[in-house]
Amino acid sequence: MISYKNLDECRAFSNLGKLPRVDVRSVLDSDRIGSSMVDMAAGLKYFYAAAPVDEAILDCLESLAEEQQLLEKYRALLSGAVMNTGEGRMVLHHLARGRLGDSPAASGSDLRDFYEGERKKAADFAQAVHAGSIRGSTGKAFQSVVQIGIGGSDLGPRAACIALERWARAGGRQKMKAAFISNVDPDDADLVLGSLDLERSLFILVSKSGTTQETLANETLVRTRLEAAGLDSSRHIVAVTSKTSPLAQHPGYLASFFIDDFIGGRYSTSSAVGGVIMSLAYGPDCFEEFLSGAHAMDKTALEPELRRNAPLLDAMIGLYERNILGLPSTAILPYTEALSRFPAHLQQLDMESNGKSVNRDGKPLAYKTGPVVFGEPGTNGQHSFYQLLHQGTDSIPLQFIGFAENQLSGDILSMGTSSRQKLLANLLAQIVAFARGKDDENPNKRFAGGRPSTMILGSRLGPAQLGALFSHFENKVMFQGFAWNINSFDQEGVQLGKVLANKMLSIMQGEKSGDTVLKAMAKAAGFLE
Amino acid sequence: MISYKNLDECRAFSNLGKLPRVDVRSVLDSDRIGSSMVDMAAGLKYFYAAAPVDEAILDCLESLAEEQQLLEKYRALLSGAVMNTGEGRMVLHHLARGRLGDSPAASGSDLRDFYEGERKKAADFAQAVHAGSIRGSTGKAFQSVVQIGIGGSDLGPRAACIALERWARAGGRQKMKAAFISNVDPDDADLVLGSLDLERSLFILVSKSGTTQETLANETLVRTRLEAAGLDSSRHIVAVTSKTSPLAQHPGYLASFFIDDFIGGRYSTSSAVGGVIMSLAYGPDCFEEFLSGAHAMDKTALEPELRRNAPLLDAMIGLYERNILGLPSTAILPYTEALSRFPAHLQQLDMESNGKSVNRDGKPLAYKTGPVVFGEPGTNGQHSFYQLLHQGTDSIPLQFIGFAENQLSGDILSMGTSSRQKLLANLLAQIVAFARGKDDENPNKRFAGGRPSTMILGSRLGPAQLGALFSHFENKVMFQGFAWNINSFDQEGVQLGKVLANKMLSIMQGEKSGDTVLKAMAKAAGFLE
Repeated sequence: MISYKNLDECRAFSNLGKLPRVDVRSVLDSDRIGSSMVDMAAGLKYFYAAAPVDEAILDCLESLAEEQQLLEKYRALLSGAVMNTGEGRMVLHHLARGRLGDSPAASGSDLRDFYEGERKKAADFAQAVHAGSIRGSTGKAFQSVVQIGIGGSDLGPRAACIALERWARAGGRQKMKAAFISNVDPDDADLVLGSLDLERSLFILVSKSGTTQETLANETLVRTRLEAAGLDSSRHIVAVTSKTSPLAQHPGYLASFFIDDFIGGRYSTSSAVGGVIMSLAYGPDCFEEFLSGAHAMDKTALEPELRRNAPLLDAMIGLYERNILGLPSTAILPYTEALSRFPAHLQQLDMESNGKSVNRDGKPLAYKTGPVVFGEPGTNGQHSFYQLLHQGTDSIPLQFIGFAENQLSGDILSMGTSSRQKLLANLLAQIVAFARGKDDENPNKRFAGGRPSTMILGSRLGPAQLGALFSHFENKVMFQGFAWNINSFDQEGVQLGKVLANKMLSIMQGEKSGDTVLKAMAKAAGFLE
Repeated sequence: MISYKNLDECRAFSNLGKLPRVDVRSVLDSDRIGSSMVDMAAGLKYFYAAAPVDEAILDCLESLAEEQQLLEKYRALLSGAVMNTGEGRMVLHHLARGRLGDSPAASGSDLRDFYEGERKKAADFAQAVHAGSIRGSTGKAFQSVVQIGIGGSDLGPRAACIALERWARAGGRQKMKAAFISNVDPDDADLVLGSLDLERSLFILVSKSGTTQETLANETLVRTRLEAAGLDSSRHIVAVTSKTSPLAQHPGYLASFFIDDFIGGRYSTSSAVGGVIMSLAYGPDCFEEFLSGAHAMDKTALEPELRRNAPLLDAMIGLYERNILGLPSTAILPYTEALSRFPAHLQQLDMESNGKSVNRDGKPLAYKTGPVVFGEPGTNGQHSFYQLLHQGTDSIPLQFIGFAENQLSGDILSMGTSSRQKLLANLLAQIVAFARGKDDENPNKRFAGGRPSTMILGSRLGPAQLGALFSHFENKVMFQGFAWNINSFDQEGVQLGKVLANKMLSIMQGEKSGDTVLKAMAKAAGFLE
C-alpha cells in the first residue's frame, strides 16, 4: 500500500539532520576510495568516496528511501500508476525501453507494443532512406537530417546526437549528418539552412501537441525555403507528433511517427522524438543499443539496497546536500567533449522536473526542492569557473563523468603522456583537490577543501553507455521527486509566459485595449509609439 | 586618496540592510517601466524596472559606491595602479581599447602603443592572408582559421566569433570560417580537424605563458596531422603569446603576436587573443568596431551618477541581491541565438574573477562574493529550466539581453507575426511574468512572482554592440570586486588541480612513491593494478 507524505513528515528525515556532518577532507582515504563504487549498467560505475556521507548517514538515507517508499513508487509508475497527478497521466518513458512492470494499456492496446511499433516504423523508414528508396522531391538521396523542435524535443536528442557523432564516425556508422533548429529567433534556422544542401535534406518536425509556437514558426520558415528552392516541401518533412494533434492527419508530411501523452518532453529521447533522428543519423541499431543501455539501467534502479542502486544513491546524496547541507546548486562536469551538451539536457531534466514549490496535492512545501543545475566539459571548466568552485564562498556539489577511452582514435603523445591520460589525470586530481584542499602560508593560495563530488566512470562512450546515463539521471530525478512528494512530470511553470507572450503579440500588432504593464513594456522597448 | 576596506565595514552597507525590501510584484507599473532605463554605448539600453530596488535603496547603493570609492578605483586602474595585488600587476584590458587615464608604461614604453601596434600587426597579417599573399605550404589560400586555446583564450573569442558570424555573412564580411580547439580530450581536436581542408587551414596557438598543458598537447596533435598530410606545419600556425614565453622565439610559427601580463585571460578578447582570429575571420574593421564599442562603454562606466552608469548600477543591484537578499546564483538569458555561448564567457568572467574567499590583503571574508552564473538563449530556456525559475523554491535574479532586429534577414510571417516579433514578445512577457506572477485556484498553476530581472536591449547585434556588452560585464564584475574588496584579477584557485594532475600523471606512468590517495584513485579508476 503506497502512501504519500512530505519529506519533513518523515522520521528518517528528522533523524538525518541530527547525525554528525562528514568532513570530506578527512574521510577520503585509500580504503574508502576502494570501497565506494557501485556497478551501474553498460559497464558504468558510480563512485561516491568524495560524497559528504558516512555509513550512519547512508543507513538513514536508506531508511528515508524506505519510509518514502521510493522503490514501491517506481514499481507503481512502471505498472501504469497515474504519477503525473496534475495532468492525470501515466508516466511511461521506461516502457519505451522495455518491459519491467505489468504493461500498462491505453484505449485497449498494450502501450509497449505501441512504442515498439513506432520504433520499428522509424527503423524501416531510416533503412529506406539509407538505401535510397526514399529520396527528396528532385530524386536525390538524403544526406542531412534536421530536427525542428524545442525544449525536450531538442535538448535530449541534440545532446545524444552530439554524444554519438564521433562514435558513429569511428565505427563507420554515420549515415547522415544531424542538425537541429530550435529557437524562434529566425537567425537560428537561417544559419543552419545556409549550411545545407536543401535538395538532400530531410526535416523532422517534432511537436507532441502540434501547437508549439516556435516549432510551427520554424516549420513555416523551412517550408518557405524549400518551396523557394523549387522543392516539394511535403516530401522533405516528416512529423513526430501525437495521434490527436492537428499535424497527425495533415497531408503535408512524407511520414508520421507517433508519441503519446505518457512520455513528457524531457523524458522523450527514448521515444520517436529521439528515435527517428538517431535511427536516421546513426542507424536503427544505434537507437536500439541506446534503449538497451537505458533499459538495463532502469533495471538496476529496482535494486533494493541503497549501496547497490546508483540512481537511488545519487538521488539520496543530492537530497542530503540540498536539504540538510543547504547547498542550492549542482555542477555537471563531463570530462569528454562528446557530452558537451549533456549538462544542458540535465539542466532541463532536473530543473523542469523538480523546480516545484507545491507537493503532489498542491500544498505549499516548507523545504527546498530541485537545485540549479549547470555545467561545462572538463578540462575546459578548470580554466574558467572552477576558480569559484575551489575558492568561492559557496560549496557546490560536483558530478563528474569520465571515460577511459577516446571515441575517435587520433590521440598523440606529448610530454610523455597521451591527451587521454592528461584528461583522466585531471579528472581524478580534481576530485582529490576539491575534497582535501591544501593549506598554504599565503591565504590567497589556500584551498579550504571539503567540497563534495561523485563520479560516473566508463570505458568508452557509445549508445549503450549513453542510454544508461540518460536513464540514471531520469531515475535519480524521479526518486528525488518522490522523496520531496512533488509531481516531477508536469511543468505548469512554463504556461504564464506563453499566455503573456500572446497578449504582448496582440499589443505589438496594435490591439487597443490590453494589459497596461505589457503596453508600457512594449513602449519602453520601442515597439509602440 | 584611495583606501580599502571590507564591505561589512561600510556604513552604507549596514544602512542597506535596514531599508525595507521592495516587492517587485507591486512596483512594476507603467511609470516605473517608462523611467527605469539607462543609456549605454552603441545604442544599448539597460532596463531595471523589474529589479528589487527603489529610490531609497538606490540612494544607499550610490552611497556605498562612493564609500567604497568604486569610480576612484576604476580611474586608478585605468592609470596603471597595481590592482592585481597578489601577482603585483597592472590591469590594462581597457587600454587595449583606447586611452582613458594616464597611459601606463612598462619597461619604458607606452603600453597603449604596444597594444595598438599588435592590433595593427594582426590587421596587416589578416589583410595579407585575405589578399592571398600569405598562403599555406602548398601554395593554397587559407579559408579556415582555427584557434587553439583554453579558458580565456577560448571562451571569450569563441563567444565573439559565434556572435558575429551571422552579422558577417549578412554584410558580406565573412573572410574565413572560424573554428576552435580547446579541450585536452583528443576527440575535440579530432572532430574539428576532420571537418577542415588542412591545406587551407591556418591555426592560431594561444598561450600567454607558453606552458599551458592542454594547448601544447593540442598543438602537437595539430602539427602531427599537418605533417602527416605532407604540409609544413610552421607555415600553418601563428602564435599569440607573451614576449617572455618559450614560444616567442620559436622558429616553428608563421608569425607571432604579443600579449602581456597586464591583461588576464578572461579579459583578453580585446587583445591579440581575440583580435587575431576576429581580424582573420571577419576583417580588421570588425575587430576595430568591437574595440570602439567596448571603449565607448568603458567611458560610460566613468559616469559618477549611479542611475546613469549601467555597469555600476548593474554591479550594485547584483551586490544587493547577493549580500542583502542572499540569492546565490544569477541567470544570463540572451534572446538571440548569436549569443548562444555568451553565458559561458560570462560564467568564466564572473566566477573566475569574483569566486574568492579572501580580501585583497588575504584576510578571510565574512560575506558572500561572486554568485554562480549560468544561462542559455531564450526562447529555448523557456521550454526547459524556466520551470524552476518560475515555480522553484529559490529566487534567481535574471539578466535578459535582446535585440529588435535580426542579424540575417530570413524572417517570415506565421500566424500573423514574424519570428522576431514572437521572440521579443516572449522576452518582454517573461519579465512581467517573473515580476508579477499570477494567482490561480489551482495551487499548481500559481506563480508567486516577485522574481527580479534586468534587461539590456539593443537594435541589432554587431561588433560595436558586442564590444559594449563585453565591456559592460567586465566593468560590472570589476565594480563588484572593488565593493567586496577582493582581487578580481588573479585565479589561484586553478593551481592545486594542475599540481595534483601532474602528480597523477606520474603515478599513471608507474612512479613508485607518491600520494597514497592519488594512487588509490588511479587504482579505483582502473589505471593501476
